[in-house]
Amino acid sequence: MKSKPKLGIGLIGTGFMGKAHVFGFTSAPRVFDLPYDIELRMVADVTPELAEKARGALGFASATHDWRDLLKDPAIDIIDITSPNALHKEMALAAIAAGKHVYCEKPLATLSSDAMEMTLAAEAAGVKTQVGFNYLCNPMLAYAKAMIAAGELGEIRSYRGVHAEDFMVDKAAVYGFRHDIAGGGALADIGSHALATAEYLLGPIDRVMGHSVTVIGERPDGKGGMKKVEIDDLSRSFVRFASGATGSIEANWLATGRKMQHDFEVYGSRGALCFSQERFNELHFYSVDDKAGQRGFRRIEAAPDHAPYGRFCVAPGHQLGFNDLKAIEVAGFLDAIAGLRPEPFNFRAGFGIQRLVELVHRSSREEKWLDVAGH
Amino acid sequence: MKSKPKLGIGLIGTGFMGKAHVFGFTSAPRVFDLPYDIELRMVADVTPELAEKARGALGFASATHDWRDLLKDPAIDIIDITSPNALHKEMALAAIAAGKHVYCEKPLATLSSDAMEMTLAAEAAGVKTQVGFNYLCNPMLAYAKAMIAAGELGEIRSYRGVHAEDFMVDKAAVYGFRHDIAGGGALADIGSHALATAEYLLGPIDRVMGHSVTVIGERPDGKGGMKKVEIDDLSRSFVRFASGATGSIEANWLATGRKMQHDFEVYGSRGALCFSQERFNELHFYSVDDKAGQRGFRRIEAAPDHAPYGRFCVAPGHQLGFNDLKAIEVAGFLDAIAGLRPEPFNFRAGFGIQRLVELVHRSSREEKWLDVAGH
Amino acid sequence: MKSKPKLGIGLIGTGFMGKAHVFGFTSAPRVFDLPYDIELRMVADVTPELAEKARGALGFASATHDWRDLLKDPAIDIIDITSPNALHKEMALAAIAAGKHVYCEKPLATLSSDAMEMTLAAEAAGVKTQVGFNYLCNPMLAYAKAMIAAGELGEIRSYRGVHAEDFMVDKAAVYGFRHDIAGGGALADIGSHALATAEYLLGPIDRVMGHSVTVIGERPDGKGGMKKVEIDDLSRSFVRFASGATGSIEANWLATGRKMQHDFEVYGSRGALCFSQERFNELHFYSVDDKAGQRGFRRIEAAPDHAPYGRFCVAPGHQLGFNDLKAIEVAGFLDAIAGLRPEPFNFRAGFGIQRLVELVHRSSREEKWLDVAGH
Amino acid sequence: MKSKPKLGIGLIGTGFMGKAHVFGFTSAPRVFDLPYDIELRMVADVTPELAEKARGALGFASATHDWRDLLKDPAIDIIDITSPNALHKEMALAAIAAGKHVYCEKPLATLSSDAMEMTLAAEAAGVKTQVGFNYLCNPMLAYAKAMIAAGELGEIRSYRGVHAEDFMVDKAAVYGFRHDIAGGGALADIGSHALATAEYLLGPIDRVMGHSVTVIGERPDGKGGMKKVEIDDLSRSFVRFASGATGSIEANWLATGRKMQHDFEVYGSRGALCFSQERFNELHFYSVDDKAGQRGFRRIEAAPDHAPYGRFCVAPGHQLGFNDLKAIEVAGFLDAIAGLRPEPFNFRAGFGIQRLVELVHRSSREEKWLDVAGH
Repeated sequence: MKSKPKLGIGLIGTGFMGKAHVFGFTSAPRVFDLPYDIELRMVADVTPELAEKARGALGFASATHDWRDLLKDPAIDIIDITSPNALHKEMALAAIAAGKHVYCEKPLATLSSDAMEMTLAAEAAGVKTQVGFNYLCNPMLAYAKAMIAAGELGEIRSYRGVHAEDFMVDKAAVYGFRHDIAGGGALADIGSHALATAEYLLGPIDRVMGHSVTVIGERPDGKGGMKKVEIDDLSRSFVRFASGATGSIEANWLATGRKMQHDFEVYGSRGALCFSQERFNELHFYSVDDKAGQRGFRRIEAAPDHAPYGRFCVAPGHQLGFNDLKAIEVAGFLDAIAGLRPEPFNFRAGFGIQRLVELVHRSSREEKWLDVAGH
Repeated sequence: MKSKPKLGIGLIGTGFMGKAHVFGFTSAPRVFDLPYDIELRMVADVTPELAEKARGALGFASATHDWRDLLKDPAIDIIDITSPNALHKEMALAAIAAGKHVYCEKPLATLSSDAMEMTLAAEAAGVKTQVGFNYLCNPMLAYAKAMIAAGELGEIRSYRGVHAEDFMVDKAAVYGFRHDIAGGGALADIGSHALATAEYLLGPIDRVMGHSVTVIGERPDGKGGMKKVEIDDLSRSFVRFASGATGSIEANWLATGRKMQHDFEVYGSRGALCFSQERFNELHFYSVDDKAGQRGFRRIEAAPDHAPYGRFCVAPGHQLGFNDLKAIEVAGFLDAIAGLRPEPFNFRAGFGIQRLVELVHRSSREEKWLDVAGH
Repeated sequence: MKSKPKLGIGLIGTGFMGKAHVFGFTSAPRVFDLPYDIELRMVADVTPELAEKARGALGFASATHDWRDLLKDPAIDIIDITSPNALHKEMALAAIAAGKHVYCEKPLATLSSDAMEMTLAAEAAGVKTQVGFNYLCNPMLAYAKAMIAAGELGEIRSYRGVHAEDFMVDKAAVYGFRHDIAGGGALADIGSHALATAEYLLGPIDRVMGHSVTVIGERPDGKGGMKKVEIDDLSRSFVRFASGATGSIEANWLATGRKMQHDFEVYGSRGALCFSQERFNELHFYSVDDKAGQRGFRRIEAAPDHAPYGRFCVAPGHQLGFNDLKAIEVAGFLDAIAGLRPEPFNFRAGFGIQRLVELVHRSSREEKWLDVAGH
Repeated sequence: MKSKPKLGIGLIGTGFMGKAHVFGFTSAPRVFDLPYDIELRMVADVTPELAEKARGALGFASATHDWRDLLKDPAIDIIDITSPNALHKEMALAAIAAGKHVYCEKPLATLSSDAMEMTLAAEAAGVKTQVGFNYLCNPMLAYAKAMIAAGELGEIRSYRGVHAEDFMVDKAAVYGFRHDIAGGGALADIGSHALATAEYLLGPIDRVMGHSVTVIGERPDGKGGMKKVEIDDLSRSFVRFASGATGSIEANWLATGRKMQHDFEVYGSRGALCFSQERFNELHFYSVDDKAGQRGFRRIEAAPDHAPYGRFCVAPGHQLGFNDLKAIEVAGFLDAIAGLRPEPFNFRAGFGIQRLVELVHRSSREEKWLDVAGH
């Protein structure tokens, strides 16, 4: 067995997403025949103690409380950014300047202009980039996309997408970074997934009309007073795809009872597909070509037919979990670095989502439809 | 057992809905303790032969090919109109002029101005009216409305409503009356149900932003040529309720695979309700008051707890069918005629829906939000 | 329109099932092109007052407190028995002796020997009979049966049937007639439906092994003491069909939360069907002939493709209710009386179910498999 | 951060399950605070080439084609056996003799007498053991077990368990090791999971009545002839728990369309729980304590409330996958080795399942109930 080149990872941030990325890095090599051997070189967190603790728990070779140390290590090839959103830009630009590939959690930046600056820098430097829209890594979505592309649904006519959760329901919960304008609100935080899925399946959105609403207008500031909230709790939009199909997108973090309603329904002239992240190992397919009297939505269960599911389990019915999606994300990025395939979701794609988020909000404020082109 | 006063029915139209109304008239007395004995007096259809055939099949005492004969019969108390939409206005106004109560299938009229004219005439004449929004007669909807009114969901924050079917999917199907501007399109035809359910549950909508789309722009005219289609195949809208809650409504008759996706999801600060007409004997309820670790949407099955289900079956789990909803509709109208309760869904309410339909379309054309007040 | 012969109905019993039968008699003529005009001639209940009240509410021409009066009326053609189970035999035999057709609620009798006596009497007299296994009247079951018969599932290999409800869960509820040995227990009362469905779909069961359990061994007698309960609360059985397929049946009236879990799953070499009465307007079908990667259980919704659904609604998605099943039952019986088709579920079939019930219990007591032949 | 003691792993077998175990070993340390650092020391496969290939792919330090080499390495603490069932006994006994802890895939052995021999050897040697009944590692099952133990369902009355798949549906598929008597058939292969889950939730089964059926009696031998099949394709059993509750178990590998129907329904006097491995991040709970009119099965989604889900994801709705269950299994075994808690499912437990499998088959052959005690 020939030895593979090494690819060193430098991770910034060790919270929920930092941990999820490490799951990806450690399970991807067991699942895929990757083009590189992954080496967890160095992890950065805000204090020496936190960094050292994360080093041990996550399995890195070394630790630092200064993320800039990662840039100096020539054995680090990928800078993996899972820090708070507001820091993404500075870190990514520094990593690009150091000639590193960059893997950045979503959202890429808090402003689309920043996202574009990062995109142009990466493209100029010739480094590879990846933004963490992990739900797109689901084999059932890849299968859905392929079915649509193959014309199995006929001409696509309408789309309904939603990403709803309930983690902001309690109005007595104190003001936090997600309530800040830099945090972005429901559309930026979770609706961005719905936008990404819509474009992943049906291609670019070229026109939007938004309605973004702040339901909980103020929250306790934690010091006995109240603080005004300016971001959206829910945001709805009409969208038109370049293909001519139309649809709607809803982002909602006040959807009591919903833990992960990342759902879509796509209707074509010959078939339809329905999906819910609540049961993300299933895809529901209706075909007008089925025999009369026996048509109905088929509950297709994830199986080796739906690559790369078979890499995880050789038999159907076993199911992937959230962390497995991260392994697929990692494998896609490594393939892109090796030049084996295009970047699955690079900074330019991340910029595209951020631009849509901003357009929807602006459309809402101005109460008019906006074209994507020219923005 | 004291004898009840008689209430004579004169039916115009004997198609799908005419038959459904007769189901209502014949089963309502077996189910409810009605204030009247119903007498099926006379049925009108376009030819003597059709009328006579319907008389026998539906159980009427007499038949006519001239609907105006119904107005002359003093033993007829209710004129029941299930004829094509374009005829509703003339027939209803004549019935009102003759002092009859009027039961009219939806939509009340093809123009809201006509609907208002009919409303004012009925109110001036003091006759009772009913428009056939049958889905509102579901006991589970009444229960949902009561839960919301009682505050069991807390403050209502968002709403998602849809009415989608697939009966217009085939673009090779010839142009018919539903494709005509007087037929009204997807929003008027089926989306009106979604609007009615939204207002039934959450109260009046006071502002709308619409997006109505004609997907199939022309259809075979049946004579070898093509005919331009001007009505909407799908229509989406943002809505704001007078309560301050916001929501969305979708009407879609190109939703391949959907036979009766009349669904809603309503999210409040303390709970949520989800419903689908596809399984209309169920209501799904989530409550934050359930014990931690054990919260989840509860699938509540229709039961005697949900009046008037118990009138049909004394035990849970037996389920109502579509025609049973018509019996409930009939019972409600008869109670209103007897003065026992307000009209469940009178001409003024029917006008309100028609006005919303028109506002959504106008909003779509003008690409701007419109207030309901003043229209 | 030619006039039809009249068929007079004499109803005994006016409870839940009596009312449901009247729903059937009144809606069947609106739905079907029946061979007869139905006349609700006379209703019998235990007191003159109850009988008269039922007459008015249910729409009968006359009333009596002596059910034998029905036998004397030459205009009564069908004696419809919905009285307590223990009275079925006497009433049916008297009706048969009077030359009447007999429509009897299930169970036909409390002992299979009685059921056989009734069967032989009816056959000797040449009258038509019907036992009220209403769930068999579901169009989706007829469709399932036809699919199986047509070989669409290939060779049938296994079957799982259950009828579970929760109406006997509360052990503090007082002893009633259903707890009595003549009432029959969970298997006779509700499991009989599961047996009937199994044989309806797959043909005769020829061997059984039972396990019947009395969970709540005593109940309050209503007078301050306790009374021993001897019937089964739940009963499980292994069954072998004459076709060679094997299966299991469960009857359970202690299934907390279940209101109508009348479910089956049937697995063949090329496909499978799953059904739940909880959603009885659906049938779930899996076919190995679907394309690889796209196989899955299809949720088929009741539609005009599934006769006689189209008699009730011309469009899919509207759904039948429990009372509609009774209309189908009535129509089938009238067709049989007119000689248009075999009796859908006659006394001999009812005997067959009762025999299976007794065999399962005996097998349970003796702890051995029993052949149906010879019993 | 203090350093942890090392625990060396020696893996035998590198197929589906070998790979799944490695997933467990590599992700467990990222998820849990384990008492040991895991070292993947050596992997054994049948040829030097296969072993070396597995070493590279799975990340072991060394490789061998002779599994006995693992016994000689003092740095190997756990022998992990994922080889064909027929080899488990020899390997486990050798490992125990070498003083190693043993982690063995299910079934523990092909005969319960062998399983007992292995159990006694392990207990005598004082080594820790683990059998791979991975479905028991689901946090939702742990939660269900805790709810039952806490009395939240009241007195448990009945149980329905099934494990059905369709991988043996095709009768043209050639005879393989699973068709051999040593392979065990449907009950041993997959029904053992259903038995394990039943006992996990409700405690020991003390009496069984079985019905095991060979549906496909012969299969192609791959050389142009046919070979007789002696094992069961499906096996049903009635079971009685020591608690007094009764239930049924079905094992079925001919269940066309079913990929992982590992389901249970448990009914108590105050509540019920339903579960399907097809949607194993959900648990459905009904409580009679809910408000009248609002009772229904609640769909509880996996969340940090259900330990150790929170170790994988800090937010609800993200879901675990099959391989995550293996990480939980590994963590439990390591805790047991460290003396922190009892072995989750040791050889004695594995023996118990194997004994039940044999009793069910024997009961089927003898057509009589059998007590577990004394066997």
